[in-house]
Amino acid sequence: MSGTIEAIRWAPFCLELLDQRRLPHETVYLRYHDAHGVADGIRSMVVRGAPAIGIAAAYGMAIAAHNAANEGEDVGRALTAARAKLASSRPTAVNLFWALDRCEEVANAALTRGASPTEISDLLAQCAREIHQDDIDRNRAMGRLGAELIPDGANVLTHCNAGALATGGHGTALGVLRSVVEAGKSIHVWVDETRPYLQGARLTLYEMVEEGIPATLISDNMAGFLMSQGRVDAVIVGTDRTVAYGDVANKIGTYTLAVLCARHKIPFYVACPLSTLDLTTATGSDIPIEERSAEELTTFQGVSIAPEGARAYHPAFDVTPAELVTAIITEAGIARAPYGESLPELLRHGRTGHVNG
Amino acid sequence: MSGTIEAIRWAPFCLELLDQRRLPHETVYLRYHDAHGVADGIRSMVVRGAPAIGIAAAYGMAIAAHNAANEGEDVGRALTAARAKLASSRPTAVNLFWALDRCEEVANAALTRGASPTEISDLLAQCAREIHQDDIDRNRAMGRLGAELIPDGANVLTHCNAGALATGGHGTALGVLRSVVEAGKSIHVWVDETRPYLQGARLTLYEMVEEGIPATLISDNMAGFLMSQGRVDAVIVGTDRTVAYGDVANKIGTYTLAVLCARHKIPFYVACPLSTLDLTTATGSDIPIEERSAEELTTFQGVSIAPEGARAYHPAFDVTPAELVTAIITEAGIARAPYGESLPELLRHGRTGHVNG
Repeated sequence: MSGTIEAIRWAPFCLELLDQRRLPHETVYLRYHDAHGVADGIRSMVVRGAPAIGIAAAYGMAIAAHNAANEGEDVGRALTAARAKLASSRPTAVNLFWALDRCEEVANAALTRGASPTEISDLLAQCAREIHQDDIDRNRAMGRLGAELIPDGANVLTHCNAGALATGGHGTALGVLRSVVEAGKSIHVWVDETRPYLQGARLTLYEMVEEGIPATLISDNMAGFLMSQGRVDAVIVGTDRTVAYGDVANKIGTYTLAVLCARHKIPFYVACPLSTLDLTTATGSDIPIEERSAEELTTFQGVSIAPEGARAYHPAFDVTPAELVTAIITEAGIARAPYGESLPELLRHGRTGHVNG
Repeated sequence: MSGTIEAIRWAPFCLELLDQRRLPHETVYLRYHDAHGVADGIRSMVVRGAPAIGIAAAYGMAIAAHNAANEGEDVGRALTAARAKLASSRPTAVNLFWALDRCEEVANAALTRGASPTEISDLLAQCAREIHQDDIDRNRAMGRLGAELIPDGANVLTHCNAGALATGGHGTALGVLRSVVEAGKSIHVWVDETRPYLQGARLTLYEMVEEGIPATLISDNMAGFLMSQGRVDAVIVGTDRTVAYGDVANKIGTYTLAVLCARHKIPFYVACPLSTLDLTTATGSDIPIEERSAEELTTFQGVSIAPEGARAYHPAFDVTPAELVTAIITEAGIARAPYGESLPELLRHGRTGHVNG
């Protein structure tokens, strides 16, 4: 739907997900024909990134309705079961719940007016495609706005992958960087490898190499040293959930970057589509932090890197307090502190107003 | 000579080095019967850690004299050749030159008074054993002093490996933790995996598991999150070089930990034997930072983790400014700011006074 890198493809009623666990060396699409499979694909990180998870879940709902229609099952009951399965796949990503809510509204309205099962599945497929296309359009709008914050010649550091692979296309944090380049500015990107899953080394660097944007891989523990040498001009990251007062949940390691930025007076930017805002949650301490398996730390591509019997702890996300965030870039504008005021204002504008794609 | 973990064993005149490249899964000792082999073992990181390198080199000198004596060669000439080979193995390791100088003094004194070749090789073996035992004694003294800084029940975070494996035994930072446990206190250790070489996951965790000290592996980007949750009470690290005004060079990632400690008001301790002090260098900006190969980042145990054509940057060390260091623990006492005064004072005391083993 956008650019050369597509994490998600749709051929009704089959969802194709680029298996991101096998990147950068293999480009393999897995095909899903039921919602349980889609939920497993999200949980096992075939697809990852909050916006992409939301899009995949929406297609999963369409598939569930389609299957129920074909098999003469109760569509409402099938959608309730599919929703429960999809909702439990990744608890921190707020876009997941946002997309499921949107699908549910569409289905309920159709059910209420007595639409046929086939009609409902078609409406859900349309809803999912809209969520998908809308995500790309909003990322492009966000990119254009955010690009103004990054000066020509800047060294920009990013963490994890908030790129085309994490979204419907273009990306959030990497979308801003793409837009910087499209605006004719030259930049260089420091890519945190992002342990333990190496989303930076495997995915962000893959996107940068594919697009010819100059980038250099570092391990996560090197950012402080680079900043102390004056070699980082800005940090930009995505987010899995940003709450009412501006606290930002994102991939583990993000908080440390924000602390380092504060010490070195380097701007710390968060690229946050409005769909990732959760204004019903007040502060970061209320955000559930997903804990993943210890094995993801003690092994590396199947090879054990720790002694037998070793314990490991693997929180997948952390929370960066609003006080460390220089600006939050959305498709409706750039929010600055106090976020408790600026974020609701942007949300009102962005959800009611038209955002040019 | 100390504890259950021995990086270095000596059975006259054969040196056995635990091959640290194969830890934690294989415990293999390689045997060395000539100084050239010992130099190769140091260069290829069979043995690592500045104190351990110095000890291994001293044994290498004893072996060189022994072989010359057995084969009727000129001992003085053999020692000159051995020294040259050993000195070139890891040119940045301060302890290496210190140990070689000590061996040379012993040999020259013996040669001057006309000692027999066998006598000289025996004296050098004795010198090496003394350097080895002295290192353990000093680590134990440092451990006892440092242990007083760590309260019962503390969660202590460490980076890289400053343990028995890096020294003659007991360790520097891990020596302090061993002494805390010996003093009857219970602690839990957070072990930074320490990318890219994974000295934490492979070596520090191995030491903790072997000794039954409760420890949990984390990736380097998790420390900030743990601190924000109040789950870290102290950080303790070793050092490769600490200079006159207290700036600390250590494994890349150390500086970031110190910045995080400052934000969270968590004490940041450095375990630094007097032999690692470099008072001829004033500040951290004068310390050369070794840059290692990009391939150590883009591959993992021979497997590529980054796309073809990706660039990487690999500084092996960083410098933590003295202002972020709560205390520097030596075998002669605990130094606090201003380090420009406290460190020279400890050095005068420690090098002239007696340190109880």
